[in-house]
Amino acid sequence: MATINANYNKLAAGYLFPEIARRARAYQEKNPGVELLRLGIGNTTEPLTPAIIQGLHSGVDKLASVATYTGYGDEQGDTRLREALCNYYKQLGVHLQVDDIFISDGAKPDSGNIQSIFGLDNIVAVQDPAYPVYVDTNVIAGRTGQFNPEKGLYDGIVYMPCTDANGFFSPPPNQKVDIIYLCSPNNPTGAVASREQLQQFVDYANKHKAVIIFDAAYSFFIKDPNLPKSIFEIDGAQECALEISSFSKIAGFTGVRLGWAVVPKTLVIENTNPGKVNSLWNRRQTTFFNGASNIVQEGGLAVFTSAGMNECRGLIDYYMHNASIIKEGMQKIGLTAYGGDNAPYIWMKTPHNIKSWEFFDKLLHEAHVVCTPGSGFGPSGEGYVRLSSFGHRENIIKAVRSIQDNLKI
Amino acid sequence: MATINANYNKLAAGYLFPEIARRARAYQEKNPGVELLRLGIGNTTEPLTPAIIQGLHSGVDKLASVATYTGYGDEQGDTRLREALCNYYKQLGVHLQVDDIFISDGAKPDSGNIQSIFGLDNIVAVQDPAYPVYVDTNVIAGRTGQFNPEKGLYDGIVYMPCTDANGFFSPPPNQKVDIIYLCSPNNPTGAVASREQLQQFVDYANKHKAVIIFDAAYSFFIKDPNLPKSIFEIDGAQECALEISSFSKIAGFTGVRLGWAVVPKTLVIENTNPGKVNSLWNRRQTTFFNGASNIVQEGGLAVFTSAGMNECRGLIDYYMHNASIIKEGMQKIGLTAYGGDNAPYIWMKTPHNIKSWEFFDKLLHEAHVVCTPGSGFGPSGEGYVRLSSFGHRENIIKAVRSIQDNLKI
Repeated sequence: MATINANYNKLAAGYLFPEIARRARAYQEKNPGVELLRLGIGNTTEPLTPAIIQGLHSGVDKLASVATYTGYGDEQGDTRLREALCNYYKQLGVHLQVDDIFISDGAKPDSGNIQSIFGLDNIVAVQDPAYPVYVDTNVIAGRTGQFNPEKGLYDGIVYMPCTDANGFFSPPPNQKVDIIYLCSPNNPTGAVASREQLQQFVDYANKHKAVIIFDAAYSFFIKDPNLPKSIFEIDGAQECALEISSFSKIAGFTGVRLGWAVVPKTLVIENTNPGKVNSLWNRRQTTFFNGASNIVQEGGLAVFTSAGMNECRGLIDYYMHNASIIKEGMQKIGLTAYGGDNAPYIWMKTPHNIKSWEFFDKLLHEAHVVCTPGSGFGPSGEGYVRLSSFGHRENIIKAVRSIQDNLKI
Repeated sequence: MATINANYNKLAAGYLFPEIARRARAYQEKNPGVELLRLGIGNTTEPLTPAIIQGLHSGVDKLASVATYTGYGDEQGDTRLREALCNYYKQLGVHLQVDDIFISDGAKPDSGNIQSIFGLDNIVAVQDPAYPVYVDTNVIAGRTGQFNPEKGLYDGIVYMPCTDANGFFSPPPNQKVDIIYLCSPNNPTGAVASREQLQQFVDYANKHKAVIIFDAAYSFFIKDPNLPKSIFEIDGAQECALEISSFSKIAGFTGVRLGWAVVPKTLVIENTNPGKVNSLWNRRQTTFFNGASNIVQEGGLAVFTSAGMNECRGLIDYYMHNASIIKEGMQKIGLTAYGGDNAPYIWMKTPHNIKSWEFFDKLLHEAHVVCTPGSGFGPSGEGYVRLSSFGHRENIIKAVRSIQDNLKI
């Protein structure tokens, strides 16, 4: 008799975003005349820019001609794109080799799959709150105990509370852990780690022979030149860290699907030879994955041209201006809002410490605005909601006004 | 200290195709003047057809305009494409619901990932020979013992030998197994299961509450109207089987990346409610995957228009004509060749029973033709090679002639 992977039964609830969609849909059905205003999911709304569109069209055209048609590409990605990423890192002072870089169909699959190359006995630490994929994929793999509904966390996972007291970036844990997920600029809090904060984690990891999984999907939103955009800007990181990133928020590729992972051959684990983690990820990708779409990779190449990069900066500036409208708009009515300066997310304290989902419903019913409940990202997210700057300007303004005019604080 | 998933150490060797590429490259480097002729990897070579190109361009254009831009789509895929697939199955007499179908970035990821929703205690049976992904992903998950180099197989896996004696389609195993991988039309043997043969497996699975994972990636190559194109054409299959398929070989999407899985809600496991396996796969996909590219899905929609389908039939006929050239060409010089009638692969017995890799080298050195060693697909593949009909007509003819003229039999 076939049996299921019983770890799935441990999962606390449905994935956060489908639940948000369900509540919003239910409200809309009951109130068909109401216009819902969305500050919820971090989903890009602005069209792709001309250079990228041209790159994608040329990717399609290549497949129309016998001379330029390509079938299976390398699972690791198009060498030209890997080289373009090497050049990008070089501008940050980070020196990588082409085969340190693996192109993928996005940061979500990579951040979900990366845990599979590690043993089940590793102790995992996550920032709390954090993007749910880090925890959920470790639950499914069997690296955790049961969900503790009282505490809102899983037994066996080490949570690093990120609170207003530590600027939403916790120091390394006191106990020994083996795998550490870090996300900076942070989803959901919008906090960005300083060099000193990341150096602490790198030193911890090198001391304890832990591995840092660094999610840099929002690095292009950093405006402050003193803040690190890659973990590899930190001394010693190439020996203990790997990095996951994405074209989703750089270029509006949320639906187009393109990302990358950097797994430096210098990363050492278990006292094995350098290159071991890199070769494991290579084996994982060549066995379970068949490469990112060749059309999409042509679009990715266009992103890293100077025209493409200029246009993408415009896109990012657009969303960052939205972020300032939201943040200032919330502060104006006395709400406490963090993030949003070097990240597209605003992390807002609920008024009167009401619960996240309660405030979600309140915001939906009173102001017709959809947000993301902070508690969906971990227990320390309770009492917060995430507001996203991904939206058309006029809708952002409308949502902020509706909150200002209609929310009963 | 972080540790690796030690199951990776059990893997016998590199993935088959990189090893072929390595040997071919090494030969080419030593013999730069020689033109290598490729009958090896099953990689499409003919350009995409006009209706599909138009669909892909329109997918790109949609992203250029604020009115039609889309970000994240549903992880399960575009509803229109899921409906088109429902309609395709209806033509086979198979009635599915839209939410039985999950769009993905290809059959390789799906056939690799599907095992992760099942428990580690399940006994897995595979056809021998088989596409290496089925076994390798179960090894990595920890469902097997060590590789036995003498026997060329992994302890803990049940191999179902497919030999000339059983027409390269073995009956169900005598012992009880829990998960059965079947591929028809078969990669690598080109054998196609009859209704009666599949009925035996479905009856076995329903009796033992096993699950059949049916790989139908080559179903569009079936010309004989009596042969089933989907496992769901078989009575009782919707209670015990799921099916994986792909646009790669239908439409030349090997590099474009698009596939689907059918996980019927009627599929029951562990005496749990119907819908359990469907909901597990839904949870897996919503947690680890972010949907297939929206551009690529527009191309997939074009495949299932009548213009697209007609053009794709032309592509398939082209490759099938190649298959007959190869098969007849090999038979003409006294070699024994199977498959190739309802499948794009020819399964050829090596002359004088020499080993597969030995024949690979012989064919490479004498005829400058790259094939795929049968032993790379499992121990029963020893003494065979796979010849692929995916190639330009002139190259196929050249390769067949070169074998006829230069191979010393």
